[in-house]
Parts: sequence; C-alpha cells; structure tokens
Amino acid sequence: MIAIINGPNLNLLGKREPEIYGRETFQSFLKKLRERFPDIAIEYFQSNCEGEIISKIHELGCENPDCKAIIINPGAYSHYSYAIADAISSIEIPVVEVHISNIASREDFRKTSVTGSRCKGIISGFDLEGYTMAVSYIKSSL
Amino acid sequence: MIAIINGPNLNLLGKREPEIYGRETFQSFLKKLRERFPDIAIEYFQSNCEGEIISKIHELGCENPDCKAIIINPGAYSHYSYAIADAISSIEIPVVEVHISNIASREDFRKTSVTGSRCKGIISGFDLEGYTMAVSYIKSSL
Amino acid sequence: MIAIINGPNLNLLGKREPEIYGRETFQSFLKKLRERFPDIAIEYFQSNCEGEIISKIHELGCENPDCKAIIINPGAYSHYSYAIADAISSIEIPVVEVHISNIASREDFRKTSVTGSRCKGIISGFDLEGYTMAVSYIKSSL
Amino acid sequence: MIAIINGPNLNLLGKREPEIYGRETFQSFLKKLRERFPDIAIEYFQSNCEGEIISKIHELGCENPDCKAIIINPGAYSHYSYAIADAISSIEIPVVEVHISNIASREDFRKTSVTGSRCKGIISGFDLEGYTMAVSYIKSSL
Amino acid sequence: MIAIINGPNLNLLGKREPEIYGRETFQSFLKKLRERFPDIAIEYFQSNCEGEIISKIHELGCENPDCKAIIINPGAYSHYSYAIADAISSIEIPVVEVHISNIASREDFRKTSVTGSRCKGIISGFDLEGYTMAVSYIKSSL
Amino acid sequence: MIAIINGPNLNLLGKREPEIYGRETFQSFLKKLRERFPDIAIEYFQSNCEGEIISKIHELGCENPDCKAIIINPGAYSHYSYAIADAISSIEIPVVEVHISNIASREDFRKTSVTGSRCKGIISGFDLEGYTMAVSYIKSSL
Amino acid sequence: MIAIINGPNLNLLGKREPEIYGRETFQSFLKKLRERFPDIAIEYFQSNCEGEIISKIHELGCENPDCKAIIINPGAYSHYSYAIADAISSIEIPVVEVHISNIASREDFRKTSVTGSRCKGIISGFDLEGYTMAVSYIKSSL
Amino acid sequence: MIAIINGPNLNLLGKREPEIYGRETFQSFLKKLRERFPDIAIEYFQSNCEGEIISKIHELGCENPDCKAIIINPGAYSHYSYAIADAISSIEIPVVEVHISNIASREDFRKTSVTGSRCKGIISGFDLEGYTMAVSYIKSSL
Amino acid sequence: MIAIINGPNLNLLGKREPEIYGRETFQSFLKKLRERFPDIAIEYFQSNCEGEIISKIHELGCENPDCKAIIINPGAYSHYSYAIADAISSIEIPVVEVHISNIASREDFRKTSVTGSRCKGIISGFDLEGYTMAVSYIKSSL
Amino acid sequence: MIAIINGPNLNLLGKREPEIYGRETFQSFLKKLRERFPDIAIEYFQSNCEGEIISKIHELGCENPDCKAIIINPGAYSHYSYAIADAISSIEIPVVEVHISNIASREDFRKTSVTGSRCKGIISGFDLEGYTMAVSYIKSSL
Amino acid sequence: MIAIINGPNLNLLGKREPEIYGRETFQSFLKKLRERFPDIAIEYFQSNCEGEIISKIHELGCENPDCKAIIINPGAYSHYSYAIADAISSIEIPVVEVHISNIASREDFRKTSVTGSRCKGIISGFDLEGYTMAVSYIKSSL
Amino acid sequence: MIAIINGPNLNLLGKREPEIYGRETFQSFLKKLRERFPDIAIEYFQSNCEGEIISKIHELGCENPDCKAIIINPGAYSHYSYAIADAISSIEIPVVEVHISNIASREDFRKTSVTGSRCKGIISGFDLEGYTMAVSYIKSSL
Repeated sequence: MIAIINGPNLNLLGKREPEIYGRETFQSFLKKLRERFPDIAIEYFQSNCEGEIISKIHELGCENPDCKAIIINPGAYSHYSYAIADAISSIEIPVVEVHISNIASREDFRKTSVTGSRCKGIISGFDLEGYTMAVSYIKSSL
Repeated sequence: MIAIINGPNLNLLGKREPEIYGRETFQSFLKKLRERFPDIAIEYFQSNCEGEIISKIHELGCENPDCKAIIINPGAYSHYSYAIADAISSIEIPVVEVHISNIASREDFRKTSVTGSRCKGIISGFDLEGYTMAVSYIKSSL
Repeated sequence: MIAIINGPNLNLLGKREPEIYGRETFQSFLKKLRERFPDIAIEYFQSNCEGEIISKIHELGCENPDCKAIIINPGAYSHYSYAIADAISSIEIPVVEVHISNIASREDFRKTSVTGSRCKGIISGFDLEGYTMAVSYIKSSL
Repeated sequence: MIAIINGPNLNLLGKREPEIYGRETFQSFLKKLRERFPDIAIEYFQSNCEGEIISKIHELGCENPDCKAIIINPGAYSHYSYAIADAISSIEIPVVEVHISNIASREDFRKTSVTGSRCKGIISGFDLEGYTMAVSYIKSSL
Repeated sequence: MIAIINGPNLNLLGKREPEIYGRETFQSFLKKLRERFPDIAIEYFQSNCEGEIISKIHELGCENPDCKAIIINPGAYSHYSYAIADAISSIEIPVVEVHISNIASREDFRKTSVTGSRCKGIISGFDLEGYTMAVSYIKSSL
Repeated sequence: MIAIINGPNLNLLGKREPEIYGRETFQSFLKKLRERFPDIAIEYFQSNCEGEIISKIHELGCENPDCKAIIINPGAYSHYSYAIADAISSIEIPVVEVHISNIASREDFRKTSVTGSRCKGIISGFDLEGYTMAVSYIKSSL
Repeated sequence: MIAIINGPNLNLLGKREPEIYGRETFQSFLKKLRERFPDIAIEYFQSNCEGEIISKIHELGCENPDCKAIIINPGAYSHYSYAIADAISSIEIPVVEVHISNIASREDFRKTSVTGSRCKGIISGFDLEGYTMAVSYIKSSL
Repeated sequence: MIAIINGPNLNLLGKREPEIYGRETFQSFLKKLRERFPDIAIEYFQSNCEGEIISKIHELGCENPDCKAIIINPGAYSHYSYAIADAISSIEIPVVEVHISNIASREDFRKTSVTGSRCKGIISGFDLEGYTMAVSYIKSSL
Repeated sequence: MIAIINGPNLNLLGKREPEIYGRETFQSFLKKLRERFPDIAIEYFQSNCEGEIISKIHELGCENPDCKAIIINPGAYSHYSYAIADAISSIEIPVVEVHISNIASREDFRKTSVTGSRCKGIISGFDLEGYTMAVSYIKSSL
Repeated sequence: MIAIINGPNLNLLGKREPEIYGRETFQSFLKKLRERFPDIAIEYFQSNCEGEIISKIHELGCENPDCKAIIINPGAYSHYSYAIADAISSIEIPVVEVHISNIASREDFRKTSVTGSRCKGIISGFDLEGYTMAVSYIKSSL
Repeated sequence: MIAIINGPNLNLLGKREPEIYGRETFQSFLKKLRERFPDIAIEYFQSNCEGEIISKIHELGCENPDCKAIIINPGAYSHYSYAIADAISSIEIPVVEVHISNIASREDFRKTSVTGSRCKGIISGFDLEGYTMAVSYIKSSL
Repeated sequence: MIAIINGPNLNLLGKREPEIYGRETFQSFLKKLRERFPDIAIEYFQSNCEGEIISKIHELGCENPDCKAIIINPGAYSHYSYAIADAISSIEIPVVEVHISNIASREDFRKTSVTGSRCKGIISGFDLEGYTMAVSYIKSSL
C-alpha cells in the first residue's frame, strides 16, 4: 500500500483558482489513478491541519508496516512547516513531494520547500499528472 | 448572513494583555454588534487552529450561499500562514481583515500581513470598533 | 472640525490609473461625504509637497483647537517619509491613515507604512469608502 | 500541579532520529521524573497541532488555578509559531522552555526561538535531563 | 512642444562637482540644444522640490495638450521618490529619464532608479549629450 | 523526436562524486532509456559551455520542427544562468528540468533554479530515473 | 556670518515630544546663542520642505560670500534625503551636522545619516547644547 | 569602424518574446542602420557564449586599431558576468551598453547591470532605436 | 573540581542594571553555591578580557586533569567571540553556558550565541539560579 | 576629575595614516588640552585591549567618586564591542564618545557605533578638536 | 607534469589595468617559471570560456594520468562559476587557486571565491609570484 | 629579522581538532622552519589576546627597524577584529596572512578575512606549509 497526503486547500481542487490548479477534482483524478495502478492500494488522506498531517505521517511511517511509501503535497505548508519537515525526517519509508503548479515559477515564498528538502525528491509543475509520475516512480523503485 | 472568524488567542480577549487589546470580551462586544445591525445575521467562529480556520473559510465561501462576506482577524497567523492566505484566495465572497491593535506600530514580524494581502482590505488599530467598521463597510457595499 | 489631508498624486484621482484608484474625483466624493455627515465640518487639503503636508499637520494639530482629528492619505510618502511620520508623532489629536487600494496587495515598497505606524490606525483597500469609514470612526470616538 | 507540554514529533521520542534525540521514550522518562518529584503532580500533554497547544496553554494558564507553571517543548513550532508565542504572553504563570538538543548547534532556522523569547527562560541541549532541570527550577522558585 | 524637467542640485550644473557633472551650465547647453532642434519648442523647468516636480508632471501630462513628451532628470530623487514615480505612471505621454553621469558606476544607492522604472527608457552616462539623445529619440518617435 | 540536454560536468556521470550522482554512466543509461521508449527518437546533447547549451535550445526550439520537447539538466548553470533561462523562455515547445540529486536538500545556492522557473516543471532527486519520468510525462502529454 | 538650518518638525521644538527633544523653543535658545557669540552673525532658517533646504544651502554656499559655515540639523531628512546630501557635497564651505538626541540610541532608521556623511562632522545627543558646540568649533577653526 | 556586439538570445530577435523585444530581426535593422550612417563602418558580432564575447572585446579593443568604439548588448550576461565586465575594463576605447527593453522596469535581477557599470554609459528601453542613439552618440563624440 | 568562568562586566553583578541582572553579588552567590554542593570543588575565574578567558579555558581543559567540566557565562562575548568559541571546541571536557537573563527576550544581537553553539547546552533566563542548575546537571552527569 | 580613554591604535596617533587621523601626537595634544582647561583634572588612559578598557570604565565609574565623566574613543572597538557597550551601560556618570574622523563618511562597518549608542552623545569628524568639544560640553553640563 | 589554467582576461596580463595586475606578460613569466623548475613539466592553458575551462579540468583530472596537480586562476569566474567549482570537486588530483591581486582587498563581489572553496588552498595577492609559490608547494607535497 | 604572530588557540596546535589543524605542534614546526631558513632570524609570538597582538604589531612595525616583515595568523580574530585590521594598516612593512585550513571551505563566518584585506596577501589551506611559503615569498621579495 502507498498513501497520498494532500495538505491545505487541496480539498478545493477543481474549484479553487482553476487557471493555476486545473479543473479536475482530486476525487475524480484519484479514481483514474487507482484504475491505472490496479495492483497498488492507494490510501488517500487530506487535511487542512498541520498537526493532523504530522500525525498521519507518523501513523503511516511508524505504525503501518503495509505502507511502503508516501506521496505528499503539503500545499502552502511546504514553505514554512518545519514541523511537517521534521515528521518526514522521523520516518524511514520514502516520501515523494508533488506540486501541481511549478513552484519555481510562482511567488518568492513558494520557491523553496522546507518539507521537500527532507523527501527523496520533488515533482513540481506537471498538474495532477505529477501524482501519476510519483506512483510510477515508487512502483519501479520498490 | 456574514461571518466573523477570529484566530488564535482572541478567545482570551478582555483578559490577555489588556493594555494592547482592551478589556471587553468578544462575546460582550458581539452582543452589542448584533444589536447595532439587527438586519444582518452575524455568525461567529473562533479557533486557535490554522486548519480549522481554513476549513471554516471553505465552508463559508464554497458551501454556504447565504454567507455574503467574511470578517477575519487571523491573529498571529496573519503574519505567516500562507495556508490561510491561500484559503482566502480560493473563495469569491469578499473578505475583510481586522486587527484590534495597529499592527504597523508593533514588532517587526507583525508589520506585514500575508493573509491581508489576499483580502479586499484591512482595518487595523481601531480596537473592537474595527469590527463595526467592517460590518458597516460590508453592509454598504453589498 | 476634522481635516482630510491628501498627499501626492491624489489630485489626479478619477483620472490616474482608474483600474487601481477608481473613476470618481475626490471633489465629487467630498461633496457626498459632507452631505452624509452634515454635522461635522470637513476641511480638505491636498499637496504634492512633503513639507507642506508637514506644515499643515502642525497647523491643524498645534494651532487650530477646533480641529479634532486628521484623516491622512500620504500616498507614496507613506512608505518613506519619516519626516511626515515625525510630524504625526508631534501632535496629540488622533490621526487616521487611509489608503484607497489595499497596500498589502501591491508592490513590496508599498507593503509597510512608516507614517501609518504613528497613527491611531490604518484603513486600506476600501476605495474612497475608506474615508467614510474614517469619518464614522472619528465621529463615534470623539 | 505543573504541566509539561510537548509539541510536534515528540511523541516519537526514542524512535525518531535517536542520534539527535536519544533512545528513551518520553513515557518511560516521565515515570522516572514523577518518581523523582513525588510531591509535585505533573500533568502531561502532547500534541502535533499548534492550535491544540495554544488551547492547552490557555486552559492551564487561565482556567486551572492549580497549575503553578508550565514546561513547554514546542519542537519545530518554537521557530515560527508566533501564535504559540502570543499564547505564552497571554498567561501569567511562569513558562519554561526545554529543548532536548542544543538548538544553537543545529540548522540556522533552529537557532532562534520565538516562543522562548516569551518564556521565563530556556534550557537547551541537556537531553531529557532538561525537563528534570526545569522541574527543579520551578520547585525551588515557587 | 516637449519639456525638460531637472531635479535637485541640477541648477548648480557647471559649478557643482565638475569632475562628475562637467563644466557647462544648463542654460548655456539649453541654448545650443534649442538651436539644434529649431522646429521643436523645448520648455524648461528646474526645481529642488519633490512636490513641485510632481505638480509640473501633472500639468504637462494632464492639462497641456501641446506637450508631447517629457525628458526628466530627477537627480537624487530618482533613487527614492516613489511619489515622483507615481506621478510619471499617472500620465500618458512618454517620459524619458536622463542622467548626466553613469549611475551604474557610482554609489550603491544610485544604482537603481525608482523613477526610471516608470519611464519609456533611461539614458545614463553621456554627460549633457544625454539630453540631446533624448530629444532626438522623441523627435524620431513622434 | 525529443531531446535531452545535459549541462556541465554531467559528462563525468558515473565517475564524479558517485555518493551524490550514482555509478552509472549516462551513455549506459541512455541506451536503456531508448530501449524502454522504442517509439520515441531521443536526441542527446551534452556541453560544459553555457553558450552552446543556449544555441542548442534555439536550434531545437526554432529550427527543428521534429523536436516536440526538451528535457534539460543544466547542472550548476541551473542556479545562475539567466541566459539559459531566457533561451528557454524564447522557445515554445515544452521544456522539463531534471536534477539527479534533490536540489532542495543540498547547498543553499542549489536550492533555487532560475532555469527551472521558465520550464513546464521540475523533477528533482530521483537519480537517473528522473529522465525516465520526464520522457513518460512528455509521451503522455503530447 | 554663519547660518543654522533646521529641518522638518524642528519648528515645534519645545512642544514636540519633550521627553526626547527638551522643553526650550529654538527661538529662545537662539537668542541666548547669539548673546554668547556676539561677534558672530548667526542667520537662522527653518523649513519643513526638502527642496527649500536644498535651495538655502545653494544660496548660502554659492551666492553669499559672507557665509563662512553652515550648521544643519536636517531632522528626519538626515536619514533618507540623498538630495540634501548632494546639496552639501556641492558647496565648499564647511557644514556641521547637529542632532539634539543621540541618533545612535534611537530607531534603526535613525542610526545612519546620509547627509552627515557629506559633512565635516556630526554632533549628536547633546540637546540644544550641540548647536553651541558647533558654533564654538566653527569659530575656532575659521 | 565601430562594432556592435550582441549577447545571448539576441540572435532570436524578432522571434523571441515579441511583446518585449519587438518584431524586427536584427539583420533587417542592421541594414537600415548602416544606410543611415553610410560614413561609418559597422562590424557586427553575435554570440551566445560569454567567453567568445570576452575574446571579441579583447580583439576589438587591443588588436584592431581601426575600431573606435564598441556598442554592446550583453543580454542576460549584463546582470552576472563579472568576466565580461572585467573585459570591458581592460580596454581603452569607449563602450556603450544598449538594452532593447527598459531593464529598470523588469524582474529584479535585471535591474542592475554589472557590465554597464564599466561602460561610458547605458541606453535602456528604446527598442532597436537604442542602437541608433548609441551610434549617433559615438559619431558626435569621436 | 569544576570551574565557573564569568566574562566581561559580570564582576559588577549586583550593581550593574539590577532590573536586568538582579541585586546579589556573585561572591555572595558563590558562597551559597559552594555550601549547597559541599562535595564539589568549584573554582571561580572572572575576566573582562577575551584573551584571558581563552587561556583559562585552555588551562582547565588541557592542563588540569582535575577539572571535570566548565560552566561559562561569556557575557557579551557570547554573541561575537568566535575566538572563545574555538577555544571551547578545542577542549574535551563538557562546557555548559549560562546566561542570567533570557537572551532570547533581549536585543537582536543577543539572540544568538556563537559560543553556546559549541557547548553541551545553554541555560538562559533563570537568574543566578542558572549556575545552580548547571552544577546540578554536571553533578548528575559525571 | 574627568578621564579620557583611548582605544586600539590611538597610541600611534600622529604616525598612523596621517591623511585620516592628522599629524599631532595625542601626548602633545593632551598637554595643550590641559593648559586650556586648567581647572579640570584630566586623567588619560590608552589601551589596545578590550578587556582593559572595560576594567578602566568600571574603575572610573564605580570605584572613583572623583571621576565626573568619561570621554571615550574606542577606535575600531566602537563598531563591534558589545562588551564595552555593556560596560558603558553599567555605570552612571556621563560618557561622551569622540571620533577623530567622521565615521559616517568611511567604510560601512564604521558607520554605526554600538558603543556610542550607550553614551550621552557622539562627536565625530572634528579631528582632535573633538576632545576639546567634549571637555567643554562636560564642563558646561556639570 | 602539472598544469596551469588561467581564466578570462588573463591573456591580457601585462596590458590590462597594470596598476592592479602588473606589467609582465604571462608568457614571459611562464618562461622564467619553467627555467626555475626545470624538472617539472608545466602545461599551460588559457581560456575566456567557462565551458572550456571545465573541459580542461576534466581532461587533466580524469584522462591524463601524467598530470599530478592543477594550478588555477579562474579570474572573475572564481566568484560565480559554480560549474567550475563542481568540476574541481569532480576530480581527485590537488588543485591550488592563485590570484594575482589580493581579492580580499577589492570589490565585495571578489571577496569570496566559490571555486577556491573546492581547492586544496588559495594563494592571493602575491602578484605573479603566487604561481611560483603554488608550484613550490606542489613540488614539496608530491 | 621577520616575525610570526599567531593568534588565539594556535598555542594548542597539534592537540586541538587535529582533523582540521594537523598533529604537529608549532614549536616543532618552527624549529624545522628556522633550520630551513638559517639566514633569516624568525621571531615568534603567540597570544590569545586581541590587544596584545595589536601592541606586538605596533612594536614590530614602528619601533623595531630590524623587522622586515610580519607573517600573521590571527585565527578567529581574522573574521571580526577590525582593531587588528587597523593595526596592520597603520604600519608600513609588509604583512602576510596565513591560515592552516582553507578558510573558504569552512563555516560562513570564516569565509571573509577582515584582517587579510589589509595585508599584502593571504595563503590559506596549505597546513603548516603555508608559513614556509610565506617566509619564501618574503625572502624573495625583500
């Protein structure tokens, strides 16, 4: 099993600022993603709360031996949540960070990712396709 | 209906550092505010949790067509919560930011508001009266 | 009596960059403002010159006991005129700063107001309505 | 009674990055700490959520007259949570900040503590023993 | 008609720091410039006062339909007068900024021009000849 | 056809700092990549010279209608070559930036990519697999 | 003859913020100063306007051969008026800068004086006595 | 003879980002420029390579006594190539820097020119006409 | 034996700025400290001289095998003496840094301790009690 | 009695960099100074050692009731010795800082004085005459 | 064999800015250097092109087992070429950086060397003699 | 005669952090150095005290005509002692700065040398051999 953790405001995907984030809801995308990778169970978790994201990382990384990897999009928390960053550092399964838009092309505060610096790698700018790329990578590297 | 969202520590209003924030509790003030604007329903929400504030903004802005505007005082989150800022950007009803003290006169970290930059405007330094001014503005602009 | 002081380029209001500052001239707005508050005399002064603004603040604050409060929009001077800021600090009647556009949403140099840090409070982003809010506040607090 | 509040990721103590944080769980340490100070009730609270930590500080500082002091280790929140810092400023019982590792020897972002600047003092770098030192200090100063 | 606006200290040209600014007075240069472009009326204005420069820009840009373009050398104001910069943004005829010395080669504070960023272009370092180049450009582009 | 452009020092791949960049040469990897995507022609170009990389981008983007996309790893140039960045902006086919190591986890100067900010997106930290992910993405998006 | 030039807000001396600037008006002080130095004519000029201060410096330094030296207190302009600084550089008689309060002990923006860097020297923190010290120095150095 | 050196990406002029750089190719412009100044030989050189630009500056400035002046547009290298800047400092014939767009109005990194600080002067923002102005200036100053 | 090293101005303790540093002299405190830990010899050294503090650290750490640990309060040197920091790094016995006031709550320059980053840990803000805590810690950890 | 304390390198006065510091030795100047103020005993102390300067400040300020004021020129220590600054804060007699050259006109590191911010005032740029001015001031203010 | 690599503008040595770099050409110096070390073959390479320098470092460090060490003077590239720095890190033979002038005494941008941080050591300020010192060092350490 | 001055902590050479500074004591090295240069008297001085180093520089540079040059390793003082830097500027014999480790490769604070900027040149990173190189250079340049 692998898990996808989406951070704040990503529950609005498809509605919020579609010129930046696109028009598809994550639920609709997730359905297609699961169909594309039928042999991998994909757990999904979304929270607007920094603390709940940390707790979910702990649960997946420390208590759930089934979970082989985490794909995380911490949204705006990527740029200042040293607490989520520490949570990522505290577990041993690989974590891949995904951003829908290319964070290097946006406001200055979005250009560096403090959470991404603790991950295996970062995929940024490929719209929802970034999640597919992350699953593919994890599948091939497991 | 309009909503007032108060952020962290504002539940202590009237008790916390009264030389900065005054001696009236928000509950007592809210009662007077509602009396002054009897024709406008004013919903009130307070949370110390960044994530709950985000979720409330989503709920009011996306799921509650009755809500015509939000008045928000994100407290200290104003100065670093890009996640709340993104939540404000993701909804379409007007949001007005209120600060009880004049944030331009205080510590350096309080001088810029990352959440306020996504709002219609900011009212800062007029004590609890700032909320009244915000309601008046919204009433006149609706 | 209260006074409104407008700083540089605000004489062009209604003509200059209407997508930012709107299409109404200040003279036309002022007429409506005086009609709305018939019981308060509102003196109006506009200057493009930092020194004249300082002198007017002195005159209103030190020599004119009729003047109960000042509403000031120092325009671009807000962001670097420590001399106007010192003038505001040197008088005792309340001063309220108004900005037509939301300065927190614009260029970096406009994000902090050195003059506003010496005022009672700041109202920013509510178009010309900001002046009305300031007069209301002053009226209610006198 | 005194209270210990531990922030994000400290629930993993003994498991997370033991070369930095050591190998003892906090539960096991807490048992020994209570044995060492049998005459002081020590309440324990851990949360990964900034908002819950703020609410707990309020509860202990404003609603629980039994609580004489707080020992807090806000983890990574120490370095950016102005909201927790404001919560500490808003109560009157003494707060002592403890860090297990010496934050002055680690990454740049960990070198300054915005929460610690509102506390009575900071104890940093003495492993779990730092909590013992904090309890001793509070005991001697009450 | 086109206008030349010279800012502070440029009245001393020919006397002030000749190793930087040369030995010819602007009056003497202006005579030659007018002779060279006999078919263009060239109005000249100099002021040491930021506010007067702003008012002149307004007058030329908004009230004088004869004026086809402005050549401006705001002197030291180039480097901090956001008020003059806003005045330039508020008119529609082209404005060309001229500096006698090469501002890129001098003190750090002179390296960026806040007024020049609102102009059509900047000519810097060609001594008084820079004004001739500006007139030539305007003549050819009208 | 798609093209891969590798920048400075990437000719040493497999030899240079293998603890960071791995032990496989790019030639050996490229062979496998072409086998994996037999239906896509993959042109390969490596240069240590900023100017040659720019010229190659021009050639592929402006003169070669067969080329559908570029995958680029500008190596250290990513972090300061505004000239390569401008070259990327000047063409219209999509460009994907790949980094073998996770640049967010390394020295400060490597944390921001000026070239990446002009690309469709960035894939960073997945070793040579990053190139495979880029080809997959391009294949699926063409 | 020597001249004293006082900048913005110094006309309020004795009234403005007396805990910083003292309670004596400058007129009263000036009378005593002239009595103490009966053999030196002391011209006095005060303006709140940057441009007028520049013009007065020009007049005294270039057109009035009687004037042997200038004592200047540019008030808040000291900290950002490169235009006044350039005016001081453009004349040849000595200029001495005086500050009533010790600018090194106040807000950060007051810690450096851009005008003072062009003067012979700076006297800061000795209340009105600083002007006496400046006159004494000039008298002894002429 | 005078020489024009164009730096990286300027070979794409007329094609690249025409909303910034215009729609005329440099070849077409050069033809008209030579017709306008029939009595001056104008050598043209373009390279995307920093090193080749340096070598060309050396050749023109040290080995070719016919060359009376250089007009250079180093493109993006203007903003970071201290090596080209040093090359300009190392020759004695005058060098004039030209930018097609007004670099003061664009991204922050483009606001200062390290190469321009070593030139006689800078002409920025007048489209291709800037080259004409440079040739005119050189012609009049030889 | 353990040693306490006090740095500059700490000889004035009890006299200097008692609102910050308290009213007890260090000699009086030291007497009580020795009485509280009768089984540990406590050597005391105070110097205002950076070099003497370095030499004392060397002597205690390299030449005196009796010395088991050092408690150091480098006073203002904490914030800029890389030379004392290097001395601490050059010895192997544990060093504990103590500050009487909470350095995180004071001026910016006092917020980071360059010497403390080389120590086992830092105790800051507990008045003279900080030294007692340090001795207790050392006693328990030996 | 008043005391003059000179810091590092001032023993070389008259020899060291005379174009900056002049050609008179301090001994020769001191003789003249004492003759000019025959009714004030002037003690003189010079040291290159930060620690000795601190100790002398303590001695004069705390142990010598005869000493009415200190004139200090801490030389280069002015710009980084927070330890001397703290020593000045710790005594109650007035301290006047003197600099021979105008520190505002020199290298950036010399532009702010951390010791001067703790003094009554600063006299900078009047050569050795600055000491005379300081003695005069002290004499008149005692 | 050892190799000397000289970077941009060093081909002009003896001609370019002789007050900084001296009057001897490198060819003439090299002849003397080879005479002084007759038993060491010294290969010489100069390029103005960053990419060619990188390729030469690769060739010498990876393909030429005869080459025992490299002496490099990257000229202005020292201060921004992370690509050359990475090339130095990628080879194993020792690299010594030489600067003719003392880079610590010149403009700010020359004060730090990004390439030098990857070398064995740096010799700066000893004119051409620095190359001799480098050869001597290499000879003695081989 | 030439002199070697070693700064703080260099008395511990051979003992302190041998992985950085090596295992040979300076005394043992000095013996070999004197044997290698039998015709040059080499005086040696070490102090941990900034003030004593300054006084020694004065003595060698101003009072001892035998001393032809100084080799100095100011240790950590290199990075902040403007007082030692001023001492070096105040003498006329050449001063060569030596660092055992390559300061460009270490912590940020060690990357710039304020004392080195006043020296003839800097030799950094060649272990104790750096002193030999310095003596050789001085011998050849006298």
